[in-house]
Amino acid sequence: MNIRVQKYGGTSVGDVDKIKKIRDMIIQKVQQGEKLLIVLSAMGTTTNQLIELAKGVSEKPSPRELDMLLTTGEQASISLLTMALVDQGCRGISYTGHQLGIETTSFHQNAKIKKINSEKILQVFKKYDVIVAAGFQGINRNQEYTTLGRGGSDTSAVALAAVLDAPCEIYTDVDGIFSGDPRKLNGAKKISRISYDEMMEMASLGAGVIHPRAVELASKYKTPIYIASTFSEEEGTWITKREEVMEEAVVTGITSSLEDVQITIKNLNPAVENLSSLFSRLGEGEVNIDMISQMVISEVLMNVSFTIPKTALETAKEIMYSWLNGNENSKVEYNDGIAKISVIGLGMRSHSGVAARVFKTMAVNRIPIKMVTTSEISITWIVDEEHENRAVDLVGKEFQLSNDFS
Amino acid sequence: MNIRVQKYGGTSVGDVDKIKKIRDMIIQKVQQGEKLLIVLSAMGTTTNQLIELAKGVSEKPSPRELDMLLTTGEQASISLLTMALVDQGCRGISYTGHQLGIETTSFHQNAKIKKINSEKILQVFKKYDVIVAAGFQGINRNQEYTTLGRGGSDTSAVALAAVLDAPCEIYTDVDGIFSGDPRKLNGAKKISRISYDEMMEMASLGAGVIHPRAVELASKYKTPIYIASTFSEEEGTWITKREEVMEEAVVTGITSSLEDVQITIKNLNPAVENLSSLFSRLGEGEVNIDMISQMVISEVLMNVSFTIPKTALETAKEIMYSWLNGNENSKVEYNDGIAKISVIGLGMRSHSGVAARVFKTMAVNRIPIKMVTTSEISITWIVDEEHENRAVDLVGKEFQLSNDFS
Repeated sequence: MNIRVQKYGGTSVGDVDKIKKIRDMIIQKVQQGEKLLIVLSAMGTTTNQLIELAKGVSEKPSPRELDMLLTTGEQASISLLTMALVDQGCRGISYTGHQLGIETTSFHQNAKIKKINSEKILQVFKKYDVIVAAGFQGINRNQEYTTLGRGGSDTSAVALAAVLDAPCEIYTDVDGIFSGDPRKLNGAKKISRISYDEMMEMASLGAGVIHPRAVELASKYKTPIYIASTFSEEEGTWITKREEVMEEAVVTGITSSLEDVQITIKNLNPAVENLSSLFSRLGEGEVNIDMISQMVISEVLMNVSFTIPKTALETAKEIMYSWLNGNENSKVEYNDGIAKISVIGLGMRSHSGVAARVFKTMAVNRIPIKMVTTSEISITWIVDEEHENRAVDLVGKEFQLSNDFS
Repeated sequence: MNIRVQKYGGTSVGDVDKIKKIRDMIIQKVQQGEKLLIVLSAMGTTTNQLIELAKGVSEKPSPRELDMLLTTGEQASISLLTMALVDQGCRGISYTGHQLGIETTSFHQNAKIKKINSEKILQVFKKYDVIVAAGFQGINRNQEYTTLGRGGSDTSAVALAAVLDAPCEIYTDVDGIFSGDPRKLNGAKKISRISYDEMMEMASLGAGVIHPRAVELASKYKTPIYIASTFSEEEGTWITKREEVMEEAVVTGITSSLEDVQITIKNLNPAVENLSSLFSRLGEGEVNIDMISQMVISEVLMNVSFTIPKTALETAKEIMYSWLNGNENSKVEYNDGIAKISVIGLGMRSHSGVAARVFKTMAVNRIPIKMVTTSEISITWIVDEEHENRAVDLVGKEFQLSNDFS
């Protein structure tokens, strides 16, 4: 059986007219003899509205009950699209996560998919042409409703595509993946093919079109993802295996973000202070550490610098205060006026000199680099936030990521 | 285990503040050592809003998908109340109809409860003090969500109370059952106890506080129902077995409605025209016939008069037109300017003369009676609609249903 898996996000099912447009696109495919598994998010801003409602009765809502509430969002959107399909004589049927046998771990608001009953899906397709499935949700072994957390519907769609051995088409409000954020990189180019690894770096670093979790899952099961705009005819972007990305660009994309803060601790004694104990304490406090740079100046003097999300700063301060307890020599500096910029590309593995070109571009244009880290396929560096857009633009031009030759 | 079953309607959980008030009342009971099973409707006008949304995508929404949509309403309200309870340290948990094992027939939008898993409920009460259950919904044998139709949450609550062998408390926006509609009967009195049979007559005839289905179910399982106002200290009304209604009033209540139309067919030939064929055709067309009066004038001449809901008039006209096909002698008259008035009372069984007192009251006050039917515990008659309020008031005084002695 040839099954097409398509996921539509919240803005794509934001109102009755949009639902009808999606209905028409689906019916067209059915008339061409296709079977479709449609995965939906909740309509528009429903999920946020439900969270607001929950906050009205409890500042810290019970996680189990919050999932009970949140799962109503997709249940509403799947029933509405299916009504619209059935209304036009299409053989469609909707299923919630639990009805579809999407088993998850127990952790509410951040459950992981454990198993999907693909037999059931194949059975249903014998009688129906379209299954409309609720994304973002599942059921744990106690038969309680769970949700998958951020990017959950993308993850549901990829998991369903994986068990059905089909590609996963994700329709959203942008035309695909670009070499940079068009608001920052003038003339950013659409990427027609990108590898899972590059996309994971891009997504983690702020591209925001698809959640890294979903890309990771797709990578694990070698499920091709196609990202395109719901209501446009433009070709989108394929996210696929490295082998299928024909021409490896040295640099595929550039991303930047203002969401981090740099913390520097000076004058530590490497013989006495154990950095790993600080990092595990921060980890226990759910403070995600991103970049780390450490410099041993002498046998008794060491500086360390790392970045964390701005939202975690207060927690991090408390943890560091207790960790440094009594150490009068050390000095802690916080810098929240930074921009984190990354270039990503499979080609970096074989092409040396990318870092050198980045450093040179920054130096020639008098943009000081505050910190650098590298991975196999990316280089990430920190600049003062006022240089963000210029840095992105200059590096974008250096690596031909832009169509703008001005 | 001593379990208290309470049902709160849509207006009682209409907003966050009301939910918090109910929370406080529940917590008070828990602190007194009680176990509570709370049955909720959807918040405020949610169900109607969802139906509007459905109509936006399909004029005649798929019944299965409409239930998929409607069941989200109670799922939201139960999760919110439970969050509010848990927030205050109360051991509460919410369950949808399907999680609670409320099995129903398959008929969407009008399913009947077949079975409830009371074992599960008792198990849950070992760990929790409050179960918040979604009213109005269940699951059929294909594991599809169903809803119970009008008065569904009342029915859920009574069914749950029945399997737990507990009374069923129904909290709503009125203080209980009155001897008549206070807008029509000045000084209408609150009834402290009323029998199931009387209540069924009252409910069918328009009292509107509780659905007759729920009363019928309670009657079958001898489940006492207590109806009172959510946010008032006033004593409410018990609906219970005849034996427990101590002092049987001759007439317990009076109801009236303007929702019917009277149809009269004159000059039928009783030897030729078979009335039962007309009534079964109307039944097949889902036209509910209420009162029927038939008069054979001679061997070849018969008149018949009956009432149906105004909403069914167009359908009824078509059916009658085809049934009378070619009969040029017969004449059909429609009268939609009528009021249907009923007096109900267990005491009628033993007290004769109630009909006579009704007729006399009407005659003395020059209100012509158009049609009459009687049951064991009620008398129903038709007057012109302009006489409705005066007729109700006069009969209310005749049978001491009113505190208003003016």
